[in-house]
Amino acid sequence: MLVDRTDVPPGMSYRQAARKAVAMCVSDFSAKGVKPDSFLISLGLRSGVRREDVVELAEGFRDASREWGVKFVGGDTNESADLIVDCSMVGFAGRVVARSGAKPDQLVVTSGYFGYSSSGLKILIKGAKARRGFRAAAVASVLNPHPRLKLGIALAKYFSSAMDSSDGLAITLHTLAERSGVGIRVDKLPCDDEVRMFAKRNGFSEEELALYGGEEYEIVATIERRHLPKARDVAARLDVDLLVIGRTTKESGVVSLKKDQREERILRKGWVHLS
Amino acid sequence: MLVDRTDVPPGMSYRQAARKAVAMCVSDFSAKGVKPDSFLISLGLRSGVRREDVVELAEGFRDASREWGVKFVGGDTNESADLIVDCSMVGFAGRVVARSGAKPDQLVVTSGYFGYSSSGLKILIKGAKARRGFRAAAVASVLNPHPRLKLGIALAKYFSSAMDSSDGLAITLHTLAERSGVGIRVDKLPCDDEVRMFAKRNGFSEEELALYGGEEYEIVATIERRHLPKARDVAARLDVDLLVIGRTTKESGVVSLKKDQREERILRKGWVHLS
Repeated sequence: MLVDRTDVPPGMSYRQAARKAVAMCVSDFSAKGVKPDSFLISLGLRSGVRREDVVELAEGFRDASREWGVKFVGGDTNESADLIVDCSMVGFAGRVVARSGAKPDQLVVTSGYFGYSSSGLKILIKGAKARRGFRAAAVASVLNPHPRLKLGIALAKYFSSAMDSSDGLAITLHTLAERSGVGIRVDKLPCDDEVRMFAKRNGFSEEELALYGGEEYEIVATIERRHLPKARDVAARLDVDLLVIGRTTKESGVVSLKKDQREERILRKGWVHLS
Repeated sequence: MLVDRTDVPPGMSYRQAARKAVAMCVSDFSAKGVKPDSFLISLGLRSGVRREDVVELAEGFRDASREWGVKFVGGDTNESADLIVDCSMVGFAGRVVARSGAKPDQLVVTSGYFGYSSSGLKILIKGAKARRGFRAAAVASVLNPHPRLKLGIALAKYFSSAMDSSDGLAITLHTLAERSGVGIRVDKLPCDDEVRMFAKRNGFSEEELALYGGEEYEIVATIERRHLPKARDVAARLDVDLLVIGRTTKESGVVSLKKDQREERILRKGWVHLS
């Protein structure tokens, strides 16, 4: 459910908001390795909404439908005080990648770098400074998120557990660890030099940006070591660099980051509503 | 999608609102003749919502799950300015009763009397006067709607078209007529003496109450004459009196009510959001 007050940052058009509402579901399907078939939209519109805004929303649904090959089959329209776009998505699968399938001593991988969306939000909302190329990439990752649908479907057979990272990397790692009864030790944050430079320039910590941001539509998964080469090949063919960020341990629920010589706990925090 | 400002009248508890949000979907499944399997809830809660209200909502979902034998499998939670309860429901069926299947010279039937919910709303919102027994029944039909799930599933094979009446009887008849390319002539409003007495006492018209109210979770369907006796038998075993209210005609889209010696057009009006 997309609610404009929390899910639509300044600079995001109605068309982008509508597409994002569908992207949020597509991202969940990606992590489960399931091809979505169709979606429904429940719309809450403000009294006095402009006709062109409704048209823009419809364009966003059409964008989403074409982009991910998913049928827009119906929905409901209501009056509300916020703009509400609630997408429900249906797909069919013989197997679904669970959150609970990780075993100790497997690798933890992500489908991309983290920190772009949280940087983008800091640029859009707080006016943080960034060099032009990074600014464009960070803002785009907020306004036009690209869930990893093809990748998720192609790699489902290799993953022992997976989840999308839309609530932030830290919460995602904690959830996988809790649901699987394992620990996770992160050796290397999935953070590139661009994010590091942006963090430094604006006085943010790169860990904060990568771990606790949210709104990243990447897949976080666990995989047996022997499957990694094959999975990387498949990912490379989709132009994705599968990043190994750490491994699972026997210490149930313990999620930590290797920093210099120490292990530091990763907090279970991220975006929390109603707080 | 249930939004409290429009869908939750005074006197309705959070528990009833949660149950109603699910009932709205169950009613659609009833008219399609499909047994629902599971549902998801997207919840929008006001900042500062009380813990006991959230518990009440959960109780309402449990009520619904038990009452209609449908699994509550997940959902989403957000912050919004209204209370929003958006239910998505999934079921599986080989055949679905369409809105478009009616042919001329078939009977138009309803699964019950109309006017109770609109009377109940007038009692709750406008303080209309009613004798005690009718008051209880009318208010109950608003606060605890009972979609006709068993009936809809049992009669699906006899219906040529069907739709639930939650937007009001008039809109429902118009939609079936338009989608099927037929006309509908109503000979007898599905209105009982109780509603007539209530209308008279408060200066309302019984037609207004029965045709244009909305929030009635009955099935409106068309059926070939030869199937009626069997369908009535099946309905009677479920304690439902299937009411014949008129018939379909060749006059595409024309929906009328026989009144004394005249035919009067039934307007395409009812509850419309954002108006």
